[in-house]
Amino acid sequence: MHILVTNDDGVTAPGLLALATEMRKLGKVTVLAPDRNWSASGHVKTLERPLRVKETFLADGSPAFTSDGAPSDCVALCLLGYLGEKIDFVVSGINPYANLGHDVTYSGTVTAAMEATIDNIPALAFSLDSKEGQVGPLDYAPAASVARRITERVLAEGLPKGVLLNVNIPYLPADEIKGVKITRQGLRVYRDRLDRRLDPRGKPYFWIGGDSPTGVDEPDTDFGVMLAGYVSITPLQLDLTAYQSMDGLRKWAW
Amino acid sequence: MHILVTNDDGVTAPGLLALATEMRKLGKVTVLAPDRNWSASGHVKTLERPLRVKETFLADGSPAFTSDGAPSDCVALCLLGYLGEKIDFVVSGINPYANLGHDVTYSGTVTAAMEATIDNIPALAFSLDSKEGQVGPLDYAPAASVARRITERVLAEGLPKGVLLNVNIPYLPADEIKGVKITRQGLRVYRDRLDRRLDPRGKPYFWIGGDSPTGVDEPDTDFGVMLAGYVSITPLQLDLTAYQSMDGLRKWAW
Repeated sequence: MHILVTNDDGVTAPGLLALATEMRKLGKVTVLAPDRNWSASGHVKTLERPLRVKETFLADGSPAFTSDGAPSDCVALCLLGYLGEKIDFVVSGINPYANLGHDVTYSGTVTAAMEATIDNIPALAFSLDSKEGQVGPLDYAPAASVARRITERVLAEGLPKGVLLNVNIPYLPADEIKGVKITRQGLRVYRDRLDRRLDPRGKPYFWIGGDSPTGVDEPDTDFGVMLAGYVSITPLQLDLTAYQSMDGLRKWAW
Repeated sequence: MHILVTNDDGVTAPGLLALATEMRKLGKVTVLAPDRNWSASGHVKTLERPLRVKETFLADGSPAFTSDGAPSDCVALCLLGYLGEKIDFVVSGINPYANLGHDVTYSGTVTAAMEATIDNIPALAFSLDSKEGQVGPLDYAPAASVARRITERVLAEGLPKGVLLNVNIPYLPADEIKGVKITRQGLRVYRDRLDRRLDPRGKPYFWIGGDSPTGVDEPDTDFGVMLAGYVSITPLQLDLTAYQSMDGLRKWAW
């Protein structure tokens, strides 16, 4: 079992090391992760420039690779043969912040897993629901342990074809996590505001600012079960067709 | 009716001008498009750096705005108030190449429309199925005319909530386009290969290369109807939940 571990926060992120450490209990692990943060960078296939890959080390001294591509590029590099050996399974994370609702289309953590799914390699995305403004380093140990147990389950049962799992883990001590729930993708509520500033030369620039996103609290969704203290596992697939609209649209006078 | 026109090829792309020109027949048009090509760049929300917006002109002398953000950032800038006036409708394109099957998660053309959909603004993505290696400039006129007629229909009927339309138009003279079909998202077949090269200093770099993607020819899909000479309209929504897998996953011994 050869497991590729990647993320969207970059190869130095502590969540990556925590995940890689737990995955080593399940098989051979290769780490190939971006050389910088790609949060909210979407599903990328870098075609207009070539990619570099460098050898590096994680904070525990273990070898890793890093690339100037996006998370999905890191997965593509490996699935297209960069390593010279087959990848059986892809895990992405652990992202420090939750990826809920519409976040999944933006999230580098989730789109790395999508890249594997498109190539029929089973993939899991792991995110931790820490809050912004947390003081001190995050404790990834409980979430990494949850990630390992979920991965073990998936390795034993096998994922349905074309499905990836988007896993969100409450930021709680292990004994306060209430369990695991299979959820549907909920509704995010973004609270972005445009923050217009002037540079030292008096010219405007614009931050996408505002408050952190919240969501609609429904009991069967990723957002709802996280609020209630459960691990949320949302099976995702890549067919975005709005089937329920097709008949109606066919009646229009095109 | 205030229509925002954007794209993923950049503000100088002829497909953008062709689309803006036709949209002016339907309402007030504002163009805000990226200052460079963002093809296959995914659904981006740029949070780690601020965005700049500049005034520029299209090749017909009409005013436009351009930003150093992604296509979805260009939409976000306008929906968050950059223009100081409301946007009623967003169109993206015309992309020179088709966006079919799994392309929709990568496509800047489609993800620009997604950004509007998340904000409950109706949005359409338009792509032309020209072939790579085409000699001379593309003729966008037939596709732009199709795009206007489809937009008129959508303005008259109203899109279902949460649904965007991914429109792919065959690269054919207007009188050879057979009509319009409502389709489901098909299956792309990517034929990427890793192309390893050495730089002048003997160090390796990697292109994601290979052949252009093809697809599985099924008669009710975006890919299938395009092959048959029809305009493909695929309604897309942003709930990626694999509902058909939920019951099975709930039975696992989590």
